[in-house]
Amino acid sequence: MENHRCGKSSFSFQEMPVIAGWASVAGKKESEGPLKQYYDVAEKDTYFGQKTWEQAERHMQELAIETLLKKTGKTKTDINLVFSGDLLNQCIGSSFTLRNAGLPHLGLYGACSTMAESLLLSAMAVGGGFAENAIALTSSHFASSERQYRFPLGYGGQRTPTAQWTVTGSGAALVCAAGKGPRIRSCTIGTVVDLGITDANNMGAAMAPAALETIRTHFSDTGTSADDYDLIITGDLGQIGKELLLSMAQKEGLNLGGKIADCGCLVFDRMKQDVHAGGSGCGCSAITLCGYLLNKISCGKLKRVLFCGTGALLSPTSSQQGLAIPGVCHAVSIIGG
Amino acid sequence: MENHRCGKSSFSFQEMPVIAGWASVAGKKESEGPLKQYYDVAEKDTYFGQKTWEQAERHMQELAIETLLKKTGKTKTDINLVFSGDLLNQCIGSSFTLRNAGLPHLGLYGACSTMAESLLLSAMAVGGGFAENAIALTSSHFASSERQYRFPLGYGGQRTPTAQWTVTGSGAALVCAAGKGPRIRSCTIGTVVDLGITDANNMGAAMAPAALETIRTHFSDTGTSADDYDLIITGDLGQIGKELLLSMAQKEGLNLGGKIADCGCLVFDRMKQDVHAGGSGCGCSAITLCGYLLNKISCGKLKRVLFCGTGALLSPTSSQQGLAIPGVCHAVSIIGG
Repeated sequence: MENHRCGKSSFSFQEMPVIAGWASVAGKKESEGPLKQYYDVAEKDTYFGQKTWEQAERHMQELAIETLLKKTGKTKTDINLVFSGDLLNQCIGSSFTLRNAGLPHLGLYGACSTMAESLLLSAMAVGGGFAENAIALTSSHFASSERQYRFPLGYGGQRTPTAQWTVTGSGAALVCAAGKGPRIRSCTIGTVVDLGITDANNMGAAMAPAALETIRTHFSDTGTSADDYDLIITGDLGQIGKELLLSMAQKEGLNLGGKIADCGCLVFDRMKQDVHAGGSGCGCSAITLCGYLLNKISCGKLKRVLFCGTGALLSPTSSQQGLAIPGVCHAVSIIGG
Repeated sequence: MENHRCGKSSFSFQEMPVIAGWASVAGKKESEGPLKQYYDVAEKDTYFGQKTWEQAERHMQELAIETLLKKTGKTKTDINLVFSGDLLNQCIGSSFTLRNAGLPHLGLYGACSTMAESLLLSAMAVGGGFAENAIALTSSHFASSERQYRFPLGYGGQRTPTAQWTVTGSGAALVCAAGKGPRIRSCTIGTVVDLGITDANNMGAAMAPAALETIRTHFSDTGTSADDYDLIITGDLGQIGKELLLSMAQKEGLNLGGKIADCGCLVFDRMKQDVHAGGSGCGCSAITLCGYLLNKISCGKLKRVLFCGTGALLSPTSSQQGLAIPGVCHAVSIIGG
């Protein structure tokens, strides 16, 4: 059997790539949340000891790589390739993390879907024989995101009920050709879906149609159904987007078998932590995957997970010009090692 | 023989992916330049009939895809995957091009190296058996870039002698598993190199060290030298960056055999077109590759080309915070079909 395309947008592997290690770095609010026991690094200082929030984000990524290398007993020279991206304009979180690190780097932009996109591409590089290993990496920071996408924090703007709270955190996963650990069974690449949502404070609604489209395509391409998964977890739809996904699926008669969870709903306690609709940002699915999920898969509590990274592909410029918010979702099927 | 890694950062293919088609869309200034006879679409209206420059950029990408499909006799449903990115914040040129197009899409950020990055990843996807074909796509627009990175155009700022002129254009290439056309022999993934250049008006100097590093690595990884190429062409170092590359190579004793050319120097007539150090932007290497270079390779005038996309990974935020400009360069070795 060789690597092969399945259906329209999916592919599987001759030999399933292995997620040999993972690491998560979480900010203060995140490390007070429901998943606090799963993070490798928890930091109370929003600046992570740096001068600016953007540099804090860079430092989180550095910490994630460092922790990943320590946990897997590797050094930088063992690493073939890093796929990474973030939310900052021109992805400076990722570029500055990798500068002068001597690590071959391919930069991505998939908004909050970047953890899934980088994992999928790492699997492609390793599964295709182009690299022995690859790191999938991403981050987001509440403060750098707020001032870039919305208002300066000092402005103290009132947040709408549909707004989500950008996660301060970074996650890194090491994908290898062989070894022990959760394995990547198949991947589905998403299309960009835009149903006309223009409210930049309701990104869950903008991303939900893309999540539905990718889950449906994944089932059809790979001949699976909700029954084949213990958990189908979306990136960061939040409460509003998750409810919308469930209601759209029901309308279409797509059976999700009660298996849906969402990283944006798991990462914070919505009642106690005042995050309105839930968590968001590249870091949201990154720390949920590289903290909670891979640990649960590794210890056998979860056996078959469909990890669906969702992204809202807006920019302040496109919003100011009155355009709607396109969404995208990439899915990675992960099974116990 | 299987796909395989060579050396530190390179890989080659069991069966070389084929560049089965290419298309280029050029703006007014570009279509008055030295390569004017090679572009498929030349447009005099800077807005490309749209309301904003950002939407003009989206439209250029749409035209590039449309022209590529027409030239190759394909329809959208034949296409498995699109790798694309651009310079706009959150890559909205690419995301809005792909919205509701039904095409599986993976977004990239490699600054002006994006044409090489998207070509390299398309080759990986096709060469690894994960897609039958993939489109590599990118664009840039002078007006949308200037206002985002530097000053509003209406301000009429004086440009420095080292400044480069962002190309208005888009290029698309179709990479297939089989067929006729130039073939991709090997690829080298760059590392992020930062030697401390802080002048955002001298990007050639910021990118030259990355170009040197990648060319050296490519030679060493693949066991080739300048003798094995008819042309080694960098993305958009411009005149200053090109001279710097040549002088650094000489100092290090790296023989480039007089084979170096630069897309930023070819795309404009520096004397007649008032572009100072030359062209730049994702569109620069995109239209030079998908206009001039692939035509020359296709008709046998060039047989062995090392295409080295260069990118300056700065953002206005990183510059305003006093940080230097990291550079990256990815190389794709292309041979006659």
